Amino acid sequence: MRVLGVDPGLTRCGVGVVDGAPGRRCGLVHVDVIRTPADAELGHRLMAIADALAAAIAEFQPDYVAVERVFAQHNVRTVMGTAQAAGLALVAATRAGVPVAMHTPSEVKAAVTGSGSADKAQVGTMVARILGLSAMPKPADAADALALAICHLWRAPQQARLAAALERGRSRAVGE
Amino acid sequence: MRVLGVDPGLTRCGVGVVDGAPGRRCGLVHVDVIRTPADAELGHRLMAIADALAAAIAEFQPDYVAVERVFAQHNVRTVMGTAQAAGLALVAATRAGVPVAMHTPSEVKAAVTGSGSADKAQVGTMVARILGLSAMPKPADAADALALAICHLWRAPQQARLAAALERGRSRAVGE
Repeated sequence: MRVLGVDPGLTRCGVGVVDGAPGRRCGLVHVDVIRTPADAELGHRLMAIADALAAAIAEFQPDYVAVERVFAQHNVRTVMGTAQAAGLALVAATRAGVPVAMHTPSEVKAAVTGSGSADKAQVGTMVARILGLSAMPKPADAADALALAICHLWRAPQQARLAAALERGRSRAVGE
Repeated sequence: MRVLGVDPGLTRCGVGVVDGAPGRRCGLVHVDVIRTPADAELGHRLMAIADALAAAIAEFQPDYVAVERVFAQHNVRTVMGTAQAAGLALVAATRAGVPVAMHTPSEVKAAVTGSGSADKAQVGTMVARILGLSAMPKPADAADALALAICHLWRAPQQARLAAALERGRSRAVGE
């Protein structure tokens, strides 16, 4: 399974592509940070992000796109641009027919470090370790995008098993 | 001059097109509300909004697109979807080569009612009066989109005059 993770942002939008399967080692396919100049018009910045995300999805053909779930209460100053970049990632994936998953920052941290409150250095260190890289991916947005992809690779089979178990329980309950 | 106003929203996104010129009566060209079902996937909802906005811009060929400036501190529960719809409006306009303007809710209310703290009924009443309509456009998202377009029609020439005056002042100051 291949997952393209997006750490949404207006100034720096991380994109990380990871291949993996349950019980196998994850492999780095691609990592990049889409940057837009702070002095450009907002519409042009957002369009550049939309185009770069669509190009990455077309190039790497992921099975899933995993996007960070943005919360309004964090970083009020930058949250609007972050939300808008996340929205563009959802549209780019949907337009390409790729299913989208969203994970919260604490889900992502917990998936790669075991702690939902891990700091950026810890996330970067673990991303490098999991992918067998000699150094932490930089900047943090690149590491976060890879962490999102890894989180989805690891959580998706669990979520599918949980959904299947719930479905079986429900079927039994209604006597099917 | 023709302005297409967008009152961004995920469940209801208002689109209003108004023609006008300084000193002339504003005329209603089109008004619509793009609706997306709350139980649909977020990516599909956002793509539907992006497509409908692009179609409206292509059909009505506005000179400007005016979008409400969204603030993170208002309506925390819905602000993410609102910000994402606003981002899609900016991308649709930029992709079509149409300049974008953003106005705050209080600028819009002040433009059409004279008060930045007017309520929805007052805005709707004034939009109907300005456009010579027999009834208030419904729902409020439709009226708000038209109010945005009217606000931009009325503010744009003032802003251009102000910018020109500032430019003349600056030129004199540097002895050009």
